[in-house]
Amino acid sequence: MRIVVANPNSTEAITETCVGLARAVAAPGTGVVGWTNREGPPVVDSFHADYLAGRALVAGLSRLEPAADAVVLAGFGNYGTAAVKEVLEAPVVAMAEAAMALATLLCHRFVIVTTSARMVPYTEDLVRLGGFEARCAGVRAVSLPPVTEAAPPPEAFVLALADHVARAGTELGADLVILGGARLSPYAADLRRAVRVPVLEPVACAVPTAEMLVRLGLRQSKVGKFAPPLVS
Amino acid sequence: MRIVVANPNSTEAITETCVGLARAVAAPGTGVVGWTNREGPPVVDSFHADYLAGRALVAGLSRLEPAADAVVLAGFGNYGTAAVKEVLEAPVVAMAEAAMALATLLCHRFVIVTTSARMVPYTEDLVRLGGFEARCAGVRAVSLPPVTEAAPPPEAFVLALADHVARAGTELGADLVILGGARLSPYAADLRRAVRVPVLEPVACAVPTAEMLVRLGLRQSKVGKFAPPLVS
Amino acid sequence: MRIVVANPNSTEAITETCVGLARAVAAPGTGVVGWTNREGPPVVDSFHADYLAGRALVAGLSRLEPAADAVVLAGFGNYGTAAVKEVLEAPVVAMAEAAMALATLLCHRFVIVTTSARMVPYTEDLVRLGGFEARCAGVRAVSLPPVTEAAPPPEAFVLALADHVARAGTELGADLVILGGARLSPYAADLRRAVRVPVLEPVACAVPTAEMLVRLGLRQSKVGKFAPPLVS
Amino acid sequence: MRIVVANPNSTEAITETCVGLARAVAAPGTGVVGWTNREGPPVVDSFHADYLAGRALVAGLSRLEPAADAVVLAGFGNYGTAAVKEVLEAPVVAMAEAAMALATLLCHRFVIVTTSARMVPYTEDLVRLGGFEARCAGVRAVSLPPVTEAAPPPEAFVLALADHVARAGTELGADLVILGGARLSPYAADLRRAVRVPVLEPVACAVPTAEMLVRLGLRQSKVGKFAPPLVS
Amino acid sequence: MRIVVANPNSTEAITETCVGLARAVAAPGTGVVGWTNREGPPVVDSFHADYLAGRALVAGLSRLEPAADAVVLAGFGNYGTAAVKEVLEAPVVAMAEAAMALATLLCHRFVIVTTSARMVPYTEDLVRLGGFEARCAGVRAVSLPPVTEAAPPPEAFVLALADHVARAGTELGADLVILGGARLSPYAADLRRAVRVPVLEPVACAVPTAEMLVRLGLRQSKVGKFAPPLVS
Amino acid sequence: MRIVVANPNSTEAITETCVGLARAVAAPGTGVVGWTNREGPPVVDSFHADYLAGRALVAGLSRLEPAADAVVLAGFGNYGTAAVKEVLEAPVVAMAEAAMALATLLCHRFVIVTTSARMVPYTEDLVRLGGFEARCAGVRAVSLPPVTEAAPPPEAFVLALADHVARAGTELGADLVILGGARLSPYAADLRRAVRVPVLEPVACAVPTAEMLVRLGLRQSKVGKFAPPLVS
Repeated sequence: MRIVVANPNSTEAITETCVGLARAVAAPGTGVVGWTNREGPPVVDSFHADYLAGRALVAGLSRLEPAADAVVLAGFGNYGTAAVKEVLEAPVVAMAEAAMALATLLCHRFVIVTTSARMVPYTEDLVRLGGFEARCAGVRAVSLPPVTEAAPPPEAFVLALADHVARAGTELGADLVILGGARLSPYAADLRRAVRVPVLEPVACAVPTAEMLVRLGLRQSKVGKFAPPLVS
Repeated sequence: MRIVVANPNSTEAITETCVGLARAVAAPGTGVVGWTNREGPPVVDSFHADYLAGRALVAGLSRLEPAADAVVLAGFGNYGTAAVKEVLEAPVVAMAEAAMALATLLCHRFVIVTTSARMVPYTEDLVRLGGFEARCAGVRAVSLPPVTEAAPPPEAFVLALADHVARAGTELGADLVILGGARLSPYAADLRRAVRVPVLEPVACAVPTAEMLVRLGLRQSKVGKFAPPLVS
Repeated sequence: MRIVVANPNSTEAITETCVGLARAVAAPGTGVVGWTNREGPPVVDSFHADYLAGRALVAGLSRLEPAADAVVLAGFGNYGTAAVKEVLEAPVVAMAEAAMALATLLCHRFVIVTTSARMVPYTEDLVRLGGFEARCAGVRAVSLPPVTEAAPPPEAFVLALADHVARAGTELGADLVILGGARLSPYAADLRRAVRVPVLEPVACAVPTAEMLVRLGLRQSKVGKFAPPLVS
Repeated sequence: MRIVVANPNSTEAITETCVGLARAVAAPGTGVVGWTNREGPPVVDSFHADYLAGRALVAGLSRLEPAADAVVLAGFGNYGTAAVKEVLEAPVVAMAEAAMALATLLCHRFVIVTTSARMVPYTEDLVRLGGFEARCAGVRAVSLPPVTEAAPPPEAFVLALADHVARAGTELGADLVILGGARLSPYAADLRRAVRVPVLEPVACAVPTAEMLVRLGLRQSKVGKFAPPLVS
Repeated sequence: MRIVVANPNSTEAITETCVGLARAVAAPGTGVVGWTNREGPPVVDSFHADYLAGRALVAGLSRLEPAADAVVLAGFGNYGTAAVKEVLEAPVVAMAEAAMALATLLCHRFVIVTTSARMVPYTEDLVRLGGFEARCAGVRAVSLPPVTEAAPPPEAFVLALADHVARAGTELGADLVILGGARLSPYAADLRRAVRVPVLEPVACAVPTAEMLVRLGLRQSKVGKFAPPLVS
Repeated sequence: MRIVVANPNSTEAITETCVGLARAVAAPGTGVVGWTNREGPPVVDSFHADYLAGRALVAGLSRLEPAADAVVLAGFGNYGTAAVKEVLEAPVVAMAEAAMALATLLCHRFVIVTTSARMVPYTEDLVRLGGFEARCAGVRAVSLPPVTEAAPPPEAFVLALADHVARAGTELGADLVILGGARLSPYAADLRRAVRVPVLEPVACAVPTAEMLVRLGLRQSKVGKFAPPLVS
């Protein structure tokens, strides 16, 4: 099975991180191939960047050769997920929706930690579009430096994340945390040691979900919402 | 006052229609300028086309010279409305949101008529994102020929529209109809003669709303969701 | 065009304030006429006062001579808005609904500041009836002296308002504020200088909305909810 | 115990009917006293009539001598229920809310049958304000002649009601019916023989609820929403 | 009239407490009979205990001799309420639903105080299943010692409860409190002296509700959800 | 990896069917072990049977030797899912929640087909508890003979199922179907040939989900809702 892990932004380092996370959880027979949205923005940190990413993403993925058995969209956002589902015949799994869907099995209410204050309303729209409001206790933001700068040192940053998780438990009743951004994913393992609630790292949720769809012969419904577009 | 009526698709004839509708309702001192999204798709009839439209729309509108006092987005959809609101300093009014907002003052529950069956879920997502579910009785679809073919003859088409409106009244309790697509707008006047409920033609809702924002010195909140993006 | 700005309470000074706010935003050809609900209560600060106001309001407005082209209800509440819409043939715009509808275009979630703690549930009911829950981050109350006493000095009061707005941003994620009471409207201009989020003063939202309806030939749907009552 | 059954409209015959229904279910020690809102409209069949009723209702009930131990509002609507709860120290039970509250214990989802098509949106607002949407399968309307004409003959009318109930079961999944208007109450007994689902006659729900509140020493919370109004 | 007050757990002392509370509010002609779920768990403090309780409860109550005129389920939870409603022909009233239904008449929004932090999500599910979300301001937890230990001294415990109620008013806008656990019921009288909002003790809500249903000849709808099970 | 497929009812034939479905989709290294709830009812077709099943299910599964790496609950219902999640340390996946979670990735709105009219409200409660209302277009029922009789002949039954699916598409806008009962699962393959929308067979959704959780080292959050019960 060949799964393409498509990074909606143009930053190769993030693609590599996601591919690493994907391979760490993929089944033995699964080949994970990274794909970077070179025409996209360096990071999806606004609605503007979301649309920049989406158009190039759809165009690029519709020309993939050889075609993938499944595509994982490895950014915590929208950036045209429905458009990709329309255009491709293969199953498409966005890591945000995979994480939220899996969370519904594991908790009472989850909190999503996102990467900047301005992404809170963006992420709330994502929760709302997916119909997960009743299961989402809230969205909280940490602060990350620009993508061009060095990632924060893990110790202090994991402490900050753990503090958010603890307060989301006390203040919002959240009993599970979703890391809402590919740039947060590398901290998942350390965060798990610092908190008692389950920590969902979305790439690790999306890849086995995509494998499952392939094994089951399932994909997005092509009747209605995700029917192939007339103009492609 | 200078209002740019931006058509998110590349079909000049639709721009002209929208500009005509806009001028018919604009205040005396308002200059209405049409803008066509030449890099966009010929019509926004899928999520794919939505993302095609959005990226080019944002890029084009951010380079407008001279800058507009307000921008009206003249397509009944999303196609990056939030991204345009981020990028522009001027007030931005999408015709779908203007029509739904105005409808809340005028009815118990509105029905939206859209242009094809596949646009029903697309439009339901739009209603949901705007938070208008409690006021939207439902979304219904008529059938339109492809944008490259001649528009349907008005008599039969208005009858079909009127029939949808009548059934939405009986079956859904809708007491107002929103024409959910720029291609439906030219039939508004005839439809008004055929039905008793108010008919909202969204360009005519959006232009005076944009004028109002300019007069009041208001625009989208630039604190949070629509703050200028870092990467533009 | 002749717009009647109807104050649902009997306090002439509030009518005058509202007329002033209305004229400041009205289009050149619009005549703004104030109307005071002399049989109403001095202020609508309870459900009791709401019903006191409503009955007299409907009776008075149904006898207006000459008839208005549109009626703006200049109190932030219900006080029989639907009843006025039933009784009048002209378009009726209540300032609360105009402000909330406009806010949906401009923000992620708005906060309403009301005039006393007891008006918080009253206002929450208004939000709920309008179906705006998904867009309203919350309702907060300031303290005002009785209507018979002098208005608070602007400096301190604007500081208090600004503090509410700031906390609504941090605690509720609100990125726009609606001044939820005619007695708060005079502070709008000063408040705008003290906060970064848009400040909606509802009279200024309702008057251009009413003008727009007249220009567009629109009014509340008279089929169903707002059909003329049999007993009038 | 002395319970006042207050008819919000001015039609004595309806008061008498309601008092009869009330006495039929009152406990042995309960005195039921009818009260007619002589300053109200003959029937509450619009928002206009609702506000006509409410102002007079509050005024009249606040002057009741001797004071009642509890007040039952015997009309299926709003007409200032919250205002009466503010003004009175005694517990106030509106028959619509008593019926909906009781229905939540007895069914999956209830249907309300109202007295005319135009009262459907009015009643939907009532359901929404009470927060009962998740339990209300829908509102359906029968046709009644004007209150000044003779009531319809019971046989045919009960058949029509039963047909509505049957269709609400099949089409909406409703497994209980609430008779949503005092004019429908007299048909409850016959309707029960014609349908298998429980039939809630709201006067019969409200009177024992009021008795219960008196026995338990409970009334509406006077802290907040229903605090005594300053101007009374 | 014979009402069985069925304690879903096996702790006789709690049955006795509930029977005492029931007799204190029962009408003169009502016989209150206690029933203890001897096969159930000592306390329902988890979903596990909920299912332990439910199976035995249904079995025991279906064999009651003589049959009751109505059954009150005297534990603040689910523990198979719908199953008991299916199996019995007599009306069944669970104290949690009786309290929430009654609260809708008396307040804007209620808070439920439950007996341990882990019962907060359990109780939130109960609120959600009943469709009371719009009226429930939140669920808060106090700490109780294990059921095998002595109950806390009333003075300090009532102070703790009163503090929760006060904070629920300030932080959540709650204007009524429901004591969400039979072990909290004995403190109701003292708590009433310490707070200004109404305090609902659920046994006292359920018993008169059950009496009312018997007097009115009503019970759960046996068409659909609560139809007798085929396998009993 | 060892996955126990636990049938909540006592009918061995259903267990065998589910084990067969599970093995058909399990990964190479996964051992699937069937477990029948011998103390449960022959089929879960009521709330009564749900509670009968749940208590025995929890007791049985807590004594499993050797412990499973994950447990799949192979019945489309509740029957104490949360209780099993509390009691077990291993991940627990109920097939209903697995199917609904997966459906959110694949469609606009799903329809659930259940096994009898009386299970419609039962299933609606399940949807509501999971917070999936916004994604569930509705629940429809087919008719099945009692579990003790022969299963219906596949041809006619698949036609009936396909007809339900087609009508759910037209009437409800559903673009995916979930087979809501283990007795429907054997028809999945044939149904797929008869309809164009994806058909989710819940055992096939749950088993790979359970495998995924084991591979990822995830399980239900043991902080809060699913913490181990004190009394077990």
